[in-house]
Amino acid sequence: MSSNRAVAYKGPGVVEVIDIDYPEFELKDGPGVNPANVGRKVPHGAILRTVATNICGSDQHMVRGRTTAPSDLVLGHEITGEVVEVGPDVEFVKVGDIVSVPFNIACGRCRNCKERKTGICLNVNPDRPGSAYGYVDMGGWVGGQAEFVLVPYADWNLLVFPDRDQALEKVMDLTMLSDIFPTGFHGAVTAGVGVGSTVYVAGAGPVGLAAATGAMLLGAAAVIVGDMNEERLAQARSFGCETIDLTKGDPAEQIEQILGVPEVDCGVDAVGFEARGHGGDSGHEAPATVLNSLMDITAAGGALGIPGLYVTGDPGGIDDAAKKGALSLSLGTGWAKSLSFTTGQCPVMKYNRGLMMAILHDRVHIAKNVNATAITLEDAPRGYAEFDAGAAQKYVLNPNGYLDAA
Amino acid sequence: MSSNRAVAYKGPGVVEVIDIDYPEFELKDGPGVNPANVGRKVPHGAILRTVATNICGSDQHMVRGRTTAPSDLVLGHEITGEVVEVGPDVEFVKVGDIVSVPFNIACGRCRNCKERKTGICLNVNPDRPGSAYGYVDMGGWVGGQAEFVLVPYADWNLLVFPDRDQALEKVMDLTMLSDIFPTGFHGAVTAGVGVGSTVYVAGAGPVGLAAATGAMLLGAAAVIVGDMNEERLAQARSFGCETIDLTKGDPAEQIEQILGVPEVDCGVDAVGFEARGHGGDSGHEAPATVLNSLMDITAAGGALGIPGLYVTGDPGGIDDAAKKGALSLSLGTGWAKSLSFTTGQCPVMKYNRGLMMAILHDRVHIAKNVNATAITLEDAPRGYAEFDAGAAQKYVLNPNGYLDAA
Amino acid sequence: MSSNRAVAYKGPGVVEVIDIDYPEFELKDGPGVNPANVGRKVPHGAILRTVATNICGSDQHMVRGRTTAPSDLVLGHEITGEVVEVGPDVEFVKVGDIVSVPFNIACGRCRNCKERKTGICLNVNPDRPGSAYGYVDMGGWVGGQAEFVLVPYADWNLLVFPDRDQALEKVMDLTMLSDIFPTGFHGAVTAGVGVGSTVYVAGAGPVGLAAATGAMLLGAAAVIVGDMNEERLAQARSFGCETIDLTKGDPAEQIEQILGVPEVDCGVDAVGFEARGHGGDSGHEAPATVLNSLMDITAAGGALGIPGLYVTGDPGGIDDAAKKGALSLSLGTGWAKSLSFTTGQCPVMKYNRGLMMAILHDRVHIAKNVNATAITLEDAPRGYAEFDAGAAQKYVLNPNGYLDAA
Amino acid sequence: MSSNRAVAYKGPGVVEVIDIDYPEFELKDGPGVNPANVGRKVPHGAILRTVATNICGSDQHMVRGRTTAPSDLVLGHEITGEVVEVGPDVEFVKVGDIVSVPFNIACGRCRNCKERKTGICLNVNPDRPGSAYGYVDMGGWVGGQAEFVLVPYADWNLLVFPDRDQALEKVMDLTMLSDIFPTGFHGAVTAGVGVGSTVYVAGAGPVGLAAATGAMLLGAAAVIVGDMNEERLAQARSFGCETIDLTKGDPAEQIEQILGVPEVDCGVDAVGFEARGHGGDSGHEAPATVLNSLMDITAAGGALGIPGLYVTGDPGGIDDAAKKGALSLSLGTGWAKSLSFTTGQCPVMKYNRGLMMAILHDRVHIAKNVNATAITLEDAPRGYAEFDAGAAQKYVLNPNGYLDAA
Repeated sequence: MSSNRAVAYKGPGVVEVIDIDYPEFELKDGPGVNPANVGRKVPHGAILRTVATNICGSDQHMVRGRTTAPSDLVLGHEITGEVVEVGPDVEFVKVGDIVSVPFNIACGRCRNCKERKTGICLNVNPDRPGSAYGYVDMGGWVGGQAEFVLVPYADWNLLVFPDRDQALEKVMDLTMLSDIFPTGFHGAVTAGVGVGSTVYVAGAGPVGLAAATGAMLLGAAAVIVGDMNEERLAQARSFGCETIDLTKGDPAEQIEQILGVPEVDCGVDAVGFEARGHGGDSGHEAPATVLNSLMDITAAGGALGIPGLYVTGDPGGIDDAAKKGALSLSLGTGWAKSLSFTTGQCPVMKYNRGLMMAILHDRVHIAKNVNATAITLEDAPRGYAEFDAGAAQKYVLNPNGYLDAA
Repeated sequence: MSSNRAVAYKGPGVVEVIDIDYPEFELKDGPGVNPANVGRKVPHGAILRTVATNICGSDQHMVRGRTTAPSDLVLGHEITGEVVEVGPDVEFVKVGDIVSVPFNIACGRCRNCKERKTGICLNVNPDRPGSAYGYVDMGGWVGGQAEFVLVPYADWNLLVFPDRDQALEKVMDLTMLSDIFPTGFHGAVTAGVGVGSTVYVAGAGPVGLAAATGAMLLGAAAVIVGDMNEERLAQARSFGCETIDLTKGDPAEQIEQILGVPEVDCGVDAVGFEARGHGGDSGHEAPATVLNSLMDITAAGGALGIPGLYVTGDPGGIDDAAKKGALSLSLGTGWAKSLSFTTGQCPVMKYNRGLMMAILHDRVHIAKNVNATAITLEDAPRGYAEFDAGAAQKYVLNPNGYLDAA
Repeated sequence: MSSNRAVAYKGPGVVEVIDIDYPEFELKDGPGVNPANVGRKVPHGAILRTVATNICGSDQHMVRGRTTAPSDLVLGHEITGEVVEVGPDVEFVKVGDIVSVPFNIACGRCRNCKERKTGICLNVNPDRPGSAYGYVDMGGWVGGQAEFVLVPYADWNLLVFPDRDQALEKVMDLTMLSDIFPTGFHGAVTAGVGVGSTVYVAGAGPVGLAAATGAMLLGAAAVIVGDMNEERLAQARSFGCETIDLTKGDPAEQIEQILGVPEVDCGVDAVGFEARGHGGDSGHEAPATVLNSLMDITAAGGALGIPGLYVTGDPGGIDDAAKKGALSLSLGTGWAKSLSFTTGQCPVMKYNRGLMMAILHDRVHIAKNVNATAITLEDAPRGYAEFDAGAAQKYVLNPNGYLDAA
Repeated sequence: MSSNRAVAYKGPGVVEVIDIDYPEFELKDGPGVNPANVGRKVPHGAILRTVATNICGSDQHMVRGRTTAPSDLVLGHEITGEVVEVGPDVEFVKVGDIVSVPFNIACGRCRNCKERKTGICLNVNPDRPGSAYGYVDMGGWVGGQAEFVLVPYADWNLLVFPDRDQALEKVMDLTMLSDIFPTGFHGAVTAGVGVGSTVYVAGAGPVGLAAATGAMLLGAAAVIVGDMNEERLAQARSFGCETIDLTKGDPAEQIEQILGVPEVDCGVDAVGFEARGHGGDSGHEAPATVLNSLMDITAAGGALGIPGLYVTGDPGGIDDAAKKGALSLSLGTGWAKSLSFTTGQCPVMKYNRGLMMAILHDRVHIAKNVNATAITLEDAPRGYAEFDAGAAQKYVLNPNGYLDAA
């Protein structure tokens, strides 16, 4: 039985690398595990030796202390691994396969999974539809920022890469398939991006950059990314996006300078509830500001894709409304324009195979676009801190040395 | 040249039948006509002798004084007529045709019309995309609660009924094609209603009843309608809906009694910004209450169709937020469930032909379902008053006697 | 261990009820079992006591000797049952559940299953994508016209009815969910049927009647069914269809008498490769006649749904082309009209839950529409013979007496 | 009144440049004009001075004498022009606009146009739905391989480029918007191409190359083009396609060498009825060979887009079946794989605006991909001859010198 080093949340602002148990085919009790899930048998699971596991912006919500995550919760839901053991019910996934793990855990047997809505599986989280590894209130499945991790319903959940050598060669791209590439792509798809569209992406963090990449892959004519972080905007420009510096004011005006009209066909919210105001007001949280702004700058008949997270309650919110997750939205603006809105977790399985094919055939370079940077597992605390400080990088942890060659 | 009697808004709470000019193929100046539209030539127009023209809930927004509608604005955007004259550019519509007029005026020549988005035509309203007859801030096209009315772009806008006698026989049903039947149907479609769906429709006014009818036509397994007006709920039950009396509290609980689960697949907001609270709070306006409630009772993965009107500004709103059209929405609830939302005017032309076919082949009885009631044009003020008081009727004006036979 | 009586194909024109083994959680060798499937473990399976199992037109292809089906092949792919035993990997389906079995066997773990294409599952039939119970060249899974049957991947494949008593009460309707109701419905969906459509269904056998029922549920304005069997046409008229007697000639002319135009919006081929000619030529097989006729009578822009079976080879075909499965199609006619065509097995799982809901809420009466008739298992040979002779009935076998009460 | 030089079909194998009348706002009698269209008033039309007009493969069907085209029929349906005159009913298109003309003439007022099916407009061709400029049996609208051309329903049909200088600079790309770029793109769309798809395009002529370009713009992972003309295959390789030389035999085997599997997700038929056999048989016409081959190599669950033309009758066909337009199709192969098929003229208006945006923002280089080559109008006969001989070029006529600068 191997040791198992893992990244854990210790308290607001603090993550540490700790020792945890090597996985078994059962969900054991532990920090954040839903009592109804304790002792759940996982004969359909696979144990992976982690090849790559990324730090995600949504991990930061917990690390900043904005949630009820308990101490010692093991983090990490962006996982690529090598299968080292399979449960007795696993029929098609094999030991030695290099695989991508969708961050949303799904059973492959409920109504929603049958309808491809794997982001709201009914059978994995006793509290509500939808689950994820290493996340507060998501059922208690142990996170994957670790040397080893258990993946339930392995035949259903795992995307097996067709060739091991090719997979390891492109692993810095492929590791984005577990979450941010499909998530950004889903934002673009649900914003209605098609060939010739003009698109505005709010937020130049990794999800925003992935949404911009996705929009380009979908054939968008022009992709404009807005943020207040110049380093991240430069990253967006590096692969052909136009950019808007929101510290300089109203995006509509800057869009007009770029496109000749002050509106785009499609809007993506890659920010979510921790938004800050534009321009002079940019230091303060303003949770509704991104959505209200997107309604202004999206043309009549357009759509908004909203991969950015909005929460039902935010104990750290700036006022009572924010604490309850209530937003002051100018819905009438959207209504007058016949806009539509799509929210929620990306159902990764709907997109990951196609995006994998695009990576394997060199049609897209997502690692370069999000500035993927490998660091050791032990360096995770530094990665969290730098990412939180606004580094224009996507940190990829390398717990078992697979990335040394890549 | 005939006389032309018409229903006009005179001031808060007051409508009167007045004399107006017989239409010409030009948009003349008058109450509410956008200056940029004054003098616009309409060689592509048709003049209709009105067969039927209905009072709509959205007319009530003006009549209640909730808008900036000027005195003498001629009301009416739900129009069925007989073509009595066509302009020189009209090629296919013929004098004598019995036709339905989509309430949204569209040019048939702009990008949005080419994409079937006739609710946001770019060329008919100088202020913004989208237009309608007899409505404040919609370009100034004269309303159709009158003996005669001008319809621009007649070849594009008019739906010609295939047989005159058949049309007049079924006119009480067909008159619903100009607005509420497609509008309710659009609510059901955008809520994702399909064969076997469970549906909740908020509001048992005519649009809600039309949405319920539309949901049934789409094959819904169960359609539940909620309102606080028992007479309107009885109307919903008359054609097979389940109903919920919102004065008795939380819809989720009543839905559970009906379906065995406290959630539906699809939610339709047929109320809009003038919503009132449920239960004990039911006397007060609560503009966000319908949408927040729908997010609670729509199952994860569902969709909300929002044909109910939300405005960008509401001078008569209950507080500053309402006056600006800002709603306090628990978007996090919707996000956690991966809900989607579709707003805006129904693009009538997308649906009216199919719904006409369903009526002509006796597959649906919308007039009965909404309790269509013909009254004379001169009786319009009474119709407005009774409708505003909550009558479970859809008033159809009969300016030229066509309905006497029907 | 119970005995297990089952309906078997013995040779051209002959079916018999024989004794077979009670199922185990393994696919044993036997008539028609693909060697690569022999010995396959089925820990994910469930054993059902059959509640109802229907005779299907596609069974007749085998019984007529038109295929390479071996003697003693156990027939039956339309199965409703009570779960009496589950394998160790079954997690959600429970003993005592009353369930519907989609005729297409699917693994729930391959690319196609993840994309809802369960009719072409990659993992259950070693020969090609797609499988079925009791069917030649479909992998060798034992048929369900028996007292007991094994269903693999039970958590994925089975549709559990929510209430046992309600299920048994409506079982004559619910038994149609395993094949013909979804299959006919799929024909209507892929023919583009929507609210207000006009539809022509070629063939008034059970699938044709199910397609007509499906078209109505989808809101079609007019559904016209054509056949040469007057008794079956009467069955179609019994639930509101128009009918065309093809022995009297050209369907276009008769369609014009019904609709006023000689074309419909949507065409469904519920006949397949064993079609016969129209009118004077009606005694001879003419495998392309249905598709060529549908191209004639479907309006430009329409679509053809083709649930009727076409085969890659037909040893009993009338000429060399037919023997190879080649059809002489006037594709230019379809091309000039921009028609589209959808072929293949219905992916039952995409539709069965919604159709179940419509049945449970009394929105559709499929048993009545197809004239479902229960007979004993021992009477199966008579059922086959009468059905083959053109009886306007859908035979439902009752191996365990559940239907005695219904 | 200007002179008007134009390219005319004179007889099998012969085209000449002749003098024709300058257009008026009326459809005059002439070669190939449907009698019912003679004298039709066109107050909604615009007269264009031709900027660019391309020779199309479908023109070659006429020139080869495979149709009933009369002598002196003016050819040309791929038209880009400058508006020099507008009829009295034209409201939005202005003199001086540089515009693209969809090859399918549409009224913008019929049911099909309202449903975006402009390839089968009901009002422009008295014979059947659908029309085109300069084409036999398509209504008689005069072709655009001329100095000047009349476009009816100009506000509806014309795509106005946003900026004159930009348009003229990119005109060699933009001229492909009138037909082959949308047509090829439609082939890719209807073949189901999406992000990550593998695609096989049969035919490396201009439409095939446009389909390949379209597939890439839609995010395809791998695009494989098959032909027997090595020069055209080299053209396909020039922009990143894989290629298959069909003179070397079976495409399945070559696909397997490229992809590792002998099948693709999506198939496009960019050849049509004048197909020739593969390999040793490649000298003979074999009208069904492309479709039968595509059914073989398209994976189960895939789709076939069929922009290649199939005709209802072909007087020059190789046998009686071909003369009647009947094809011997192995439909059973497609049925077993659940394939779908989409035929017909591309409705250009559905795609041209988006593709224009992609061109204007430098996202695609269609002129380079199809090897667009400008020649003078007087050189048209040479262009026809070279194109027919298999030149890997797309000939663009330059009747008024606009292309001299480009």
